[in-house]
Amino acid sequence: MNDTRAVCVVGLGLIGGSVLRVAAGAGREAWGYTESATDAAAARADGYDVMATADEALIRAAAADALVVLAVPLPAVDGVLRRVHHCAPTCRLTDVASVKAPMAEAVAELAPRARYVGGHPMAGTAESGWGAGSASLFDGAAWVVATDEGLDLDVWADVATLALAAGAGVVPAAIDEHDAAVARISHLPHVMAAVLAGVGADGGPLAMSLAAGSFRDGTRVAGSRPELVTAMCEGNRWALLGAVDDALGRLGAARGSLASTGGLAATIRAGHRGREALEDHRATEATADLTVTDPLAKLRELGRTGARVVALRR
Amino acid sequence: MNDTRAVCVVGLGLIGGSVLRVAAGAGREAWGYTESATDAAAARADGYDVMATADEALIRAAAADALVVLAVPLPAVDGVLRRVHHCAPTCRLTDVASVKAPMAEAVAELAPRARYVGGHPMAGTAESGWGAGSASLFDGAAWVVATDEGLDLDVWADVATLALAAGAGVVPAAIDEHDAAVARISHLPHVMAAVLAGVGADGGPLAMSLAAGSFRDGTRVAGSRPELVTAMCEGNRWALLGAVDDALGRLGAARGSLASTGGLAATIRAGHRGREALEDHRATEATADLTVTDPLAKLRELGRTGARVVALRR
Repeated sequence: MNDTRAVCVVGLGLIGGSVLRVAAGAGREAWGYTESATDAAAARADGYDVMATADEALIRAAAADALVVLAVPLPAVDGVLRRVHHCAPTCRLTDVASVKAPMAEAVAELAPRARYVGGHPMAGTAESGWGAGSASLFDGAAWVVATDEGLDLDVWADVATLALAAGAGVVPAAIDEHDAAVARISHLPHVMAAVLAGVGADGGPLAMSLAAGSFRDGTRVAGSRPELVTAMCEGNRWALLGAVDDALGRLGAARGSLASTGGLAATIRAGHRGREALEDHRATEATADLTVTDPLAKLRELGRTGARVVALRR
Repeated sequence: MNDTRAVCVVGLGLIGGSVLRVAAGAGREAWGYTESATDAAAARADGYDVMATADEALIRAAAADALVVLAVPLPAVDGVLRRVHHCAPTCRLTDVASVKAPMAEAVAELAPRARYVGGHPMAGTAESGWGAGSASLFDGAAWVVATDEGLDLDVWADVATLALAAGAGVVPAAIDEHDAAVARISHLPHVMAAVLAGVGADGGPLAMSLAAGSFRDGTRVAGSRPELVTAMCEGNRWALLGAVDDALGRLGAARGSLASTGGLAATIRAGHRGREALEDHRATEATADLTVTDPLAKLRELGRTGARVVALRR
């Protein structure tokens, strides 16, 4: 039964700290480690089991055949993966990063024997650190679980079961499909908001004094911390490039039409249909059946229909 | 005293109906006319003075030296202007259209002797018709009053006084400055939202199932009625073309940077500064002094600083 699988969380910030709370709250053996003395002290004060070093946490994970959840900031990933390869080389491994291809490449290079299944819980707040986390952070959220051919089905079930314990719905997707989708709906919106905010502000105080709802909504995320947004978008460079090219093509077509005939109906109608697709989207609830032939292929098909897995059959 | 100037409103939908309520509520002699039998009946039932024909309303305006407020939909403008030229050729004339250059051209062509000062109250709701209007619709809103060289200062004061009676702040701006500013902060946001919604929806159900706040905010106005958005954007064709070109240049630069170095910091930082400009903007409250030399030039300068006129000196 993988719903009693022990869980080792490395990195106890907003996401990692919330994962540790979820795992412990589900009655599992769960422990963590963080470089941050502040987060470590806060987690211990809240009664959680925080090890003194990453190596200790990982050696314990190897012994317990635990699921290791990598939840450190991107710049710290390579260092932790080297410790994984040293202390728990074949461990069950997942992560919570918002872009999956670079993480898969890092794992392949630095911890090649780890049984890695990437994850991306799509939850977050503007705050960070242990104190900002909670066991309910993922409630109702989408939690993408990588579903590429060749990965360990048993670890897939470990990750999916943890996501379900967190109250999330599992969205199965291949790594490249995930990265292309989040480029469109999570990273491109930041680029477009930045462009719009720049054009608007170049209109000077007169333009700012006339700005109302459409400009305010369209630029809201441009108010996010620029270094975080930059790192997030740059981390998905290749998939984002495709989404930016799509946007450039559409904006260029609108430009051409406006200049030649003065017409914008095609652009505006396509946008309206796109917004309707968002509003009409209702996630179907599905069961992931791991007993069938080609279960990963079937899971990927399920994800492409927009379904969320809410139960597992093993 | 122009704060007792009679007011004749042609078109009694959301905006025109609200203007009639404001004028009557300020104790002025005020009447209106509308092609819509429904709106006419509703306005009369609410106790307002609605004339049987546009000609009657305009002949009365000529006799009373009233301020005529043109508040009909764009396709009806030319017809009404012909009646103005016939029944009240030299009347005090303003309007409420969201783009000012095409309206000024239509007036110059069809009612060339009218003492026209364009206006743009920046208020609205998703609803339309007399029933959606209210005397408080313009409370705290910006009401742009055209401030080009050569227009009748006395009529300028009429329009500004009506805007102040409505609770709005007057933003003085030349017609081309107004159209360029609203292209940036009101029409470009619709084009960008349409482009973003189209790119996102092309990601299919998987992308829609992962869409969260940034995509939802960035595409909100793409949910507006496409025929209204199209007409609004197309009406500001030339100024919008400039804003779209600015956006294309910035998005192209982001694309180039992402492809060559992988860096997006310049784009994201510029967007963050733009959003800060919006958040930091506080409209200075100013008095429009019509007794100075070159009052219209001084008013345009005031508008460029982002100020709002809240009082008049004559």
